[in-house]
Amino acid sequence: MPSTTPPRCSIARTLEVLGEKWTLLVVREAFFGATRFSEFRATLGVASDVLTTRLATLVDHGVMEKRSYRDEGSRERSSYHLTQSGLALRPVLAALKEWGDEFRPLETGPTSDFRRSTDRSHIRLAFVGVDGVLVEPADVELVRRQPVPTS
Amino acid sequence: MPSTTPPRCSIARTLEVLGEKWTLLVVREAFFGATRFSEFRATLGVASDVLTTRLATLVDHGVMEKRSYRDEGSRERSSYHLTQSGLALRPVLAALKEWGDEFRPLETGPTSDFRRSTDRSHIRLAFVGVDGVLVEPADVELVRRQPVPTS
Repeated sequence: MPSTTPPRCSIARTLEVLGEKWTLLVVREAFFGATRFSEFRATLGVASDVLTTRLATLVDHGVMEKRSYRDEGSRERSSYHLTQSGLALRPVLAALKEWGDEFRPLETGPTSDFRRSTDRSHIRLAFVGVDGVLVEPADVELVRRQPVPTS
Repeated sequence: MPSTTPPRCSIARTLEVLGEKWTLLVVREAFFGATRFSEFRATLGVASDVLTTRLATLVDHGVMEKRSYRDEGSRERSSYHLTQSGLALRPVLAALKEWGDEFRPLETGPTSDFRRSTDRSHIRLAFVGVDGVLVEPADVELVRRQPVPTS
């Protein structure tokens, strides 16, 4: 698909920003509090040029924003922070985590958890109806909408 | 990270299977009912060799299973079907779709919807506590667990 025409499916458009290797792991580290290039680099063990490209993609698409900081005696550097759009990726990370925990588990168990900040209790993702009632996975359908006529 | 040692984070392990371009779009098409190579190829417009590789990855990791079919007068071919692990990816697709709908919208609107199969009403993803109570996004934290001592 040509990059000039965004795909009509929003899953595909999201993957244009987030589908490349490392991108969502950079976002994960940002949720854990990383802001500096060296912090992302150290935790992820990703090559510097790849990290530079991924951070640029995230900034270009408004998922992260770049700020400047200067440590005493050092030159000015950039730090990277999740925007509202970046913070809204919690359900994406949670969905990936829950699937990995269930279908690719390790004996050592999960390395992270989603918690309710008020009491640190466990939380999970679920489908809910417009009435706020939980919907069982077996009752969930993905349906294609009718294409909009272009003529 | 070497491919012989799976990453301890389940988000990273999930992305090892699902993080490559096209993989989740193949899964999306499977939810829409595609089973044949030619169907995935036609809807996605992806190169045959890439599609072959992505389907093989999904089969290798138990997300899809391969079956045989034979149309009258044709040779035997393979079809591809979501397994239980594949069907469990609904929340991953839903999270990507909801984010794309909100932060990368198109004027033409969404091309797909998650619906409750019993009455076709709209549904969405939400965080819920162990008590089944919905948790506001602002009250959701991603916390890192203490590493398990390796010695």
